[in-house]
Amino acid sequence: MKSERPTRGNGRGALFVHPQEESEHTIMTQKAIFYHAGCPVCVSAEQGLAQALNPAAYDVEIVHLGEAPGRIAEAEAAGVQSVPALVLGGRPYHINFGATLADVKGAA
Amino acid sequence: MKSERPTRGNGRGALFVHPQEESEHTIMTQKAIFYHAGCPVCVSAEQGLAQALNPAAYDVEIVHLGEAPGRIAEAEAAGVQSVPALVLGGRPYHINFGATLADVKGAA
Repeated sequence: MKSERPTRGNGRGALFVHPQEESEHTIMTQKAIFYHAGCPVCVSAEQGLAQALNPAAYDVEIVHLGEAPGRIAEAEAAGVQSVPALVLGGRPYHINFGATLADVKGAA
Repeated sequence: MKSERPTRGNGRGALFVHPQEESEHTIMTQKAIFYHAGCPVCVSAEQGLAQALNPAAYDVEIVHLGEAPGRIAEAEAAGVQSVPALVLGGRPYHINFGATLADVKGAA
């Protein structure tokens, strides 16, 4: 059987990382998900509030439920009832009011 | 007439400041005001969202309208209709729903 070891180098260079730094980063930032449906209220909340979060503490993901209807169930499970909404630390924060999740489902 | 000049030193030490640094700070941070009324929804939003804002960009002031009813008019002028609410860049973002401003006025 032929060895799959690379012909040059010992491959150890790839192991020369700083796991400490990586884990600190993982511990310090937590996931924040901003759910919206592209409505004007949503755009305002995204630009005003979602982008105002502390980048050192939160890794913000923007999810357009009209374009990604497959993620509606996940938003509902987190307690989201209307958009725009921000889920931080597993808790839903509804920001102003754009549309209900039922409306988004109907449109999707 | 007696001179009021200090008897020691020339007073110039006090002028030795860094105006550049001070103005940069003023330009970079803007005021964010979180209005609440002490309700459970308000406390959750304060801990979850108001404290999640980027400290490099926002100087967050927390205002309890039940204890500072004199600031209800200011909140109304910014478009706040219910608490908890966050005013960022002059725009109101109502976060979930604790109480209407009318309720807060009635209780204050």
